[in-house]
Amino acid sequence: MLRFFNFTKLCLLHSKASTFPPFISISNNIGVRSQMGSYSTSSSSKLLFRQLFDKESSTYTYLLADSSHPDKPALLIDPVDKTLDRDLTIIQELGLKLVYAMNTHVHADHVTGTGLIKSEVPDVKSVISKASGAKADIYVEQGHKVWFGDLFLEVRATPGHTLGCITYVTGDASDQPQPRMAFTGDAVLIRGCGRTDFQGGSSEQLYKSVHSQIFTLPDDTLIYPAHDYKGFTVSTVGEERRYNPRLTKDEETFKSIMANLNLPYPKMIDIAVPANLVCGIQSKAT
Amino acid sequence: MLRFFNFTKLCLLHSKASTFPPFISISNNIGVRSQMGSYSTSSSSKLLFRQLFDKESSTYTYLLADSSHPDKPALLIDPVDKTLDRDLTIIQELGLKLVYAMNTHVHADHVTGTGLIKSEVPDVKSVISKASGAKADIYVEQGHKVWFGDLFLEVRATPGHTLGCITYVTGDASDQPQPRMAFTGDAVLIRGCGRTDFQGGSSEQLYKSVHSQIFTLPDDTLIYPAHDYKGFTVSTVGEERRYNPRLTKDEETFKSIMANLNLPYPKMIDIAVPANLVCGIQSKAT
Repeated sequence: MLRFFNFTKLCLLHSKASTFPPFISISNNIGVRSQMGSYSTSSSSKLLFRQLFDKESSTYTYLLADSSHPDKPALLIDPVDKTLDRDLTIIQELGLKLVYAMNTHVHADHVTGTGLIKSEVPDVKSVISKASGAKADIYVEQGHKVWFGDLFLEVRATPGHTLGCITYVTGDASDQPQPRMAFTGDAVLIRGCGRTDFQGGSSEQLYKSVHSQIFTLPDDTLIYPAHDYKGFTVSTVGEERRYNPRLTKDEETFKSIMANLNLPYPKMIDIAVPANLVCGIQSKAT
Repeated sequence: MLRFFNFTKLCLLHSKASTFPPFISISNNIGVRSQMGSYSTSSSSKLLFRQLFDKESSTYTYLLADSSHPDKPALLIDPVDKTLDRDLTIIQELGLKLVYAMNTHVHADHVTGTGLIKSEVPDVKSVISKASGAKADIYVEQGHKVWFGDLFLEVRATPGHTLGCITYVTGDASDQPQPRMAFTGDAVLIRGCGRTDFQGGSSEQLYKSVHSQIFTLPDDTLIYPAHDYKGFTVSTVGEERRYNPRLTKDEETFKSIMANLNLPYPKMIDIAVPANLVCGIQSKAT
């Protein structure tokens, strides 16, 4: 009961727009927040951040929390079903309160951990884009903000790998982590990008998404992708703008590269996509 | 020639003790440095840091550089032979000058990349502990400092997994990265530790090393191990002091745990150890 109370309080604290879930905001006016309480103006140290890896699918799961908030509210980006115990254990050990289990898109290569997390920690809300076509507790769109404590993630629509891909970017404000961090899903991989030949993928759309929504971020923005297959853990916008072997090309060359990848049919897609389309609520009778 | 000149200059700049290689210092008096030139008093943003993973051996290689120094001097900790191209490419792309290829110990599960690096970039110096019994260009011991630009790593002797294990810790000074970072090799793994049943290993020694040299660091010190098998990328001293399932036990229990692990003979040991004992110079006619 205490957990529920804390969660409700947390949500209401961050209410910005009544037409949206109370803890999601579409306001771009960061200044409003400073009127709501006493916030530090320098909070990069507030962010507790962990990058977690699933070796089987080469998926990165990200744990973010506001460690200076009394509730230590936390979220997971792209959790994997098979690493659920590891992730919930570290959350417990660090004394965090998991609030959101978020996905950047409907994955085709692993089953999201969101549903299992919700069955273990019922207060957790699943988050995905409206355009994904997947079920979830909360749908987000371009410009929404997802608050956890005094920190927030901004939602950027980055379709192209799938129709519903989004990128979560840490806030553009002095009390948010510096440099900014972009959780790009499969839109931008380190020196690569996600394939565009299924799930409503479009190389033309991906090119436009990356160049308008990700490569326009400051050069020092850290890029944390959903996968890496070569052992890289992080890149930056500046690096990918200079060295990404696909996305540095002009649009026509990029489309040609993507049309000729000749990749095999994803071995997990027939299991993963149906499961992930009901992400977050497959374990509930709804 | 220019490269050699720059390297020499860099080494001499950091000379502290004539009985040691010019770029290694045993001085603990950080204040001496401030008389040598104009250094920033707040340089946590100076550190360029990359964690790199070798999926086959689950080894982490660490790239550190002083990005604000004109030479952008860089070092690699625990490079792997099979990921050499990846590591040298990223170093080149980031505009860094690789100065040191360092090992925490003589590894038994992979061949170090040090020798290959030296053959590709002859100016690079290999670094390992004197107690390791391995060949290298530079031997370090407890209390030595390894400078790269205006940043340095402090050497702590942490034997137990092997006789020659060392931990590299970022400097304890206001112009060094905060929180501190400890590259623990196999002495402390995340929620684990290295085995102690070969290469001069000793559970008693490991227990003493960790408790005297690592767990005495501030709780927020980041622990970056040489390996992880569960997808963790980082921990902290505080976390391991509280949750490490082996090292939180008393010494006798720890010794008993380590004596009863019943681990298989390492599959790479007969290849890796002989190669790594000549780390850094197996490709040179010495």
